[in-house]
Amino acid sequence: MELSLRERQKERRRSEIYEAAIALFKESGFENTTATEIARASGVSRGTFFNYYPYKEAVLLDYGSLVVKSLEAEAGRRLDRGQPPLDVLYDIWSLLADENTKERDLFPPLAYEVMNPNPERAQTAYRALRLSGVVELILRPLHDAGELRSDLSLARISNLIADTYLLVALRWSAYGTGRSLHDELRLSLDLLLTGALKR
Amino acid sequence: MELSLRERQKERRRSEIYEAAIALFKESGFENTTATEIARASGVSRGTFFNYYPYKEAVLLDYGSLVVKSLEAEAGRRLDRGQPPLDVLYDIWSLLADENTKERDLFPPLAYEVMNPNPERAQTAYRALRLSGVVELILRPLHDAGELRSDLSLARISNLIADTYLLVALRWSAYGTGRSLHDELRLSLDLLLTGALKR
Repeated sequence: MELSLRERQKERRRSEIYEAAIALFKESGFENTTATEIARASGVSRGTFFNYYPYKEAVLLDYGSLVVKSLEAEAGRRLDRGQPPLDVLYDIWSLLADENTKERDLFPPLAYEVMNPNPERAQTAYRALRLSGVVELILRPLHDAGELRSDLSLARISNLIADTYLLVALRWSAYGTGRSLHDELRLSLDLLLTGALKR
Repeated sequence: MELSLRERQKERRRSEIYEAAIALFKESGFENTTATEIARASGVSRGTFFNYYPYKEAVLLDYGSLVVKSLEAEAGRRLDRGQPPLDVLYDIWSLLADENTKERDLFPPLAYEVMNPNPERAQTAYRALRLSGVVELILRPLHDAGELRSDLSLARISNLIADTYLLVALRWSAYGTGRSLHDELRLSLDLLLTGALKR
């Protein structure tokens, strides 16, 4: 599909605002960055910023969505190469841990967005960050081979695993724990997979 | 410890405000009830209400805290009677499901409070609603008998189980699912316990 000149201009403007916002978040922290500052840094008015992103957290959703999409592509490549699904899941979890460890401050506001009391915002966030979809993609071969427990659907098992990721990473990002996020995530994934596989 | 007259009066006032607030929440919903209405219904000024409860959600924490304490007492009685720990956990989960099903509208704002982006509010909520403490109490005999996996501490396993309860119940309360909350909770508990027990 060919984009019109106007659409391409909108796309470019959006990506300029996105880049300026993420740079500011990384520099000064998410909470300390205002919409006015993002607008100034990307050379648009405050009103224009809100045309592209109705709230500040929406910029983070674009960031999270890129992360999830790149993980999904990576998972697909690994499965296509014949890597065993469980190994793929551990590797993807480890890549996620890398990204979260690097961008520790961006994670809590992203997680809170998924759990926003406003159902529309929560659903928007949930759709942008379909981590459970990545888990489902990875576990599907095991499901089709009858290796997963059958009293819970593949979608529910995938949700449980993705939700646990969210809470373990949130606890780690917001409060810190003695262990690295890698270890925290690996151990909780281990427990869940032991529970998810047929004995 | 003897309470002074002044302290007893404060306790009574607090419980009057609590009863009036919970009655209003059940009648009109949490979101639709204002601090002014709670104050009016309990015969105090708005300022007095905020002296007892600094925010509306704090009233819900008292409610949740009572629920958790009564479950903890029930779990203790069942363990003392010699009921096997895993049975106790399933029964306690079932009692929780009853309470949540009955008070479906009170649960989401309570869960959001535990995940409040303001760390002080989140910690206050977490301390008021120590569900992971109840799980720990129930699983301790299994832990001491060496029946739980040893790469995660009892506290972390208990946290994972309590967190999963939170998210499964929140999803159910806020969005509904095809299954009863009883079934949702039992199935996810089953998966987690399979993962938590030594093979």
